[in-house]
Amino acid sequence: MDYRLYYSPGACSLAVHVVLEEIGAPYALEAVALARAENRQARYLAINPKGFVPALEIAGEPRVLTELPAILIYLARRHPQAGLLPETGTIDEARAFEWLAWLAGWVHGIGYAEIWRPERFSRADSTPHEALRANGRAIVEEAYAKIEDILGDGRTWAVASGYCVVDPFLLVLYRWGNRIGIPMRERYPAWTAHTERMLERAAVGRVLEQEGVLIEG
Amino acid sequence: MDYRLYYSPGACSLAVHVVLEEIGAPYALEAVALARAENRQARYLAINPKGFVPALEIAGEPRVLTELPAILIYLARRHPQAGLLPETGTIDEARAFEWLAWLAGWVHGIGYAEIWRPERFSRADSTPHEALRANGRAIVEEAYAKIEDILGDGRTWAVASGYCVVDPFLLVLYRWGNRIGIPMRERYPAWTAHTERMLERAAVGRVLEQEGVLIEG
Repeated sequence: MDYRLYYSPGACSLAVHVVLEEIGAPYALEAVALARAENRQARYLAINPKGFVPALEIAGEPRVLTELPAILIYLARRHPQAGLLPETGTIDEARAFEWLAWLAGWVHGIGYAEIWRPERFSRADSTPHEALRANGRAIVEEAYAKIEDILGDGRTWAVASGYCVVDPFLLVLYRWGNRIGIPMRERYPAWTAHTERMLERAAVGRVLEQEGVLIEG
Repeated sequence: MDYRLYYSPGACSLAVHVVLEEIGAPYALEAVALARAENRQARYLAINPKGFVPALEIAGEPRVLTELPAILIYLARRHPQAGLLPETGTIDEARAFEWLAWLAGWVHGIGYAEIWRPERFSRADSTPHEALRANGRAIVEEAYAKIEDILGDGRTWAVASGYCVVDPFLLVLYRWGNRIGIPMRERYPAWTAHTERMLERAAVGRVLEQEGVLIEG
């Protein structure tokens, strides 16, 4: 086994799961159910003290690798034959990293975190939680309008040069939009077409089946 | 001119400024003073709609590049002779990206943002701002203890293999600790030694002088 992925069904770890399937390297899956707060239990904190998924165990490496952008880039660069990132040193590569930082740090790290984990922003005082949820919703909706704009310029994938590790992350965020009640299909036609292209990929089909999640509904 | 850096004195853009000096490529500086909210003015929003610094203008590229991790990695990869990132596809490279994602997305993006920009998390309702500031402070102090632990294991730079783009970002965060009243020198000896090594670098000295900022005081 080259890798072991600590994941929770439908979490942003799904993007890593897709990348592992695209690459075809041998890996094991280990579920850490966020719904049962298994990520906050001592057993998992001993593996990843940050308490987040994904974490990637790498054969021969004593500590897991954390942080979604770092894991995605590592897998793409370690397996260049899969073609999951633009060439090193190009502006297209930089655009891929710009997407990852913005989606992970802003859209997920602040927008969705405020909606689903308001205690992260105000752990000692729960009074603000409703205000935080509303703010997170506004951040997500503004970001989604921007994503639709970008994908609507005629490109096929997130980065103009071709399919890369950003695209599975966009699939996760499309699914989350449905989960918080945004009418994704009606509101975002370009992003919906992107999702349909994702669903045609064999790797994506296998991952959704293994995790037992749907994009809509 | 190969590059134009939109920066604010002492902001996280200082890390990019150091990297530009280390590389030695011709660049211009353009100040966007956060203290005067110039980043929220129409003139700057036309350049970077996100309204953040840093943004990097690249010769021949119509849109600026945004997101600190993306800019740092781009410059390092575009100028490999400067040796500012571990080799592509290695675990050391992945550790550098793990640092960048955590420092940018968690320590800066949530910790310091809650302290200095609580309105980002609750724009419609300012009642929670004090609770957000206190939470940000707790996140920063926990993260700083962790940074001290890592730097205290005997390594010279953030990534064991050598100086890289993570180190200037750590210098920015050390300075910010002083600014929010954390007794950095007394509390974090390993990080202080790291800062002293940074201050011996000619590139760092030039940048602090050009931006007119000090690390302590």
